[in-house]
Amino acid sequence: MASFINRRQWTVEWGQCDPGGIVFNSRFFEMFDISTWLLFEAALGVKAHELAKTFNIVGIPLVDARANFIKTAKFGDIVEIASRVAEFRRSSFEIEHRLSIDGELTVEGGETRVWAARDKANPEKFGATAIPADVIARFG
Amino acid sequence: MASFINRRQWTVEWGQCDPGGIVFNSRFFEMFDISTWLLFEAALGVKAHELAKTFNIVGIPLVDARANFIKTAKFGDIVEIASRVAEFRRSSFEIEHRLSIDGELTVEGGETRVWAARDKANPEKFGATAIPADVIARFG
Amino acid sequence: MASFINRRQWTVEWGQCDPGGIVFNSRFFEMFDISTWLLFEAALGVKAHELAKTFNIVGIPLVDARANFIKTAKFGDIVEIASRVAEFRRSSFEIEHRLSIDGELTVEGGETRVWAARDKANPEKFGATAIPADVIARFG
Amino acid sequence: MASFINRRQWTVEWGQCDPGGIVFNSRFFEMFDISTWLLFEAALGVKAHELAKTFNIVGIPLVDARANFIKTAKFGDIVEIASRVAEFRRSSFEIEHRLSIDGELTVEGGETRVWAARDKANPEKFGATAIPADVIARFG
Repeated sequence: MASFINRRQWTVEWGQCDPGGIVFNSRFFEMFDISTWLLFEAALGVKAHELAKTFNIVGIPLVDARANFIKTAKFGDIVEIASRVAEFRRSSFEIEHRLSIDGELTVEGGETRVWAARDKANPEKFGATAIPADVIARFG
Repeated sequence: MASFINRRQWTVEWGQCDPGGIVFNSRFFEMFDISTWLLFEAALGVKAHELAKTFNIVGIPLVDARANFIKTAKFGDIVEIASRVAEFRRSSFEIEHRLSIDGELTVEGGETRVWAARDKANPEKFGATAIPADVIARFG
Repeated sequence: MASFINRRQWTVEWGQCDPGGIVFNSRFFEMFDISTWLLFEAALGVKAHELAKTFNIVGIPLVDARANFIKTAKFGDIVEIASRVAEFRRSSFEIEHRLSIDGELTVEGGETRVWAARDKANPEKFGATAIPADVIARFG
Repeated sequence: MASFINRRQWTVEWGQCDPGGIVFNSRFFEMFDISTWLLFEAALGVKAHELAKTFNIVGIPLVDARANFIKTAKFGDIVEIASRVAEFRRSSFEIEHRLSIDGELTVEGGETRVWAARDKANPEKFGATAIPADVIARFG
């Protein structure tokens, strides 16, 4: 497992909660997405919006996402988000997001993404390609 | 005032409401946006996602938006949306969205947009350009 | 597997897509949520916002959600959503959402939810409770 | 004009941008809302989610919102948000949000809200009520 962990904080907004007074589920998936961008930014030392250009890729598209809702989060809660790459494979990888409030695990999220580049023979197309060894190395 | 009115229906979703149990304000602006696309689709007979290509424009970017919240809307409410162009100017126009529940005005929205095309001399740039007379004519 | 399937259509909006021109992942989870409400509304013949009151429950809170993104969806795409309960257990159940465009599977989603009621001894608390047999029967 | 200004920073997320690569309009209204909560939190020294309880009000519901989009914002942009109460009236007030990128005004937003409390004679109802002088005083 890659040992680099990126930590950030999210203060729950009123507009992110539903009539039950708790964070609406889709908001957690927004949080996973931006947390992944910021994890890569932190590990690679490249601004998230320059990631594609820097590594000559199209991006890191999401192929699978999941969340386990353990406790609820509500307006004003301060959520600690700890994100890391749980596994690198040849051209895809697993990201794990652990969200806690006051030290208690609230939500566990997972994303499967691919390292996607344009096809050299056909630049209209793109697909998963091998993740560079030096990228993986930066995640420790 | 252009007389063409496009009418649609929106059933309020759980996830669109806030802890007060009412539709969160930003959701109305999402509704205004898609209602404008569909107004143009209906008036011009061109699918919304083909509008730019068909009229050789970049799009109809928003320069100003506003809403007046008269009554609240909640989960399960059926909202009637009536949208029209309130005024066409040379290269910009005013859209008006009236949202009602059970015949009672709930929210009044307004958008100012421009008809934007690429600069022929410099295709990297784009700006407001004259709205074709036949486009305006389709709005009656 | 419960045989009752609820089908609905979703036309992708501009504001639901990201800079890659495809539907942003969290939007699918919004769709799963409302599709589940509408599945229950269709199967039980009770308006979604009256579900809790009718069955004397707090709601059907989500404990796990997941999506597999097979193909992308973009502005203007017409997405067919087919939702059903894949499995009922004593107090929890699995929902399956299959989203297709032009007959091709685009996204597969899953949700685990519980049938949650207030604790009779302590109305401040609530938890998973047995799903009534007649509710299960309505799903065929 | 109240002189108290609350400043915060927002780094634009990928999922907040549309296929044109710019922040989708409704996201600015989400930002206005949370910026108002945080303005009140900063001025009054009360956590946003405790505002209602502390001042014995229902909340500060929005009756009108508007935005003027001057420049575009895109993924990775760092947006400075400066919020203040532009005017207090007896029971309503005007909030002004100025969003800038690199010192250039990007979006100007405005919200009209009311100070809303339960009717003493009929607690089922609530409406605009006089804003306490000491609340106004805290905004300088």
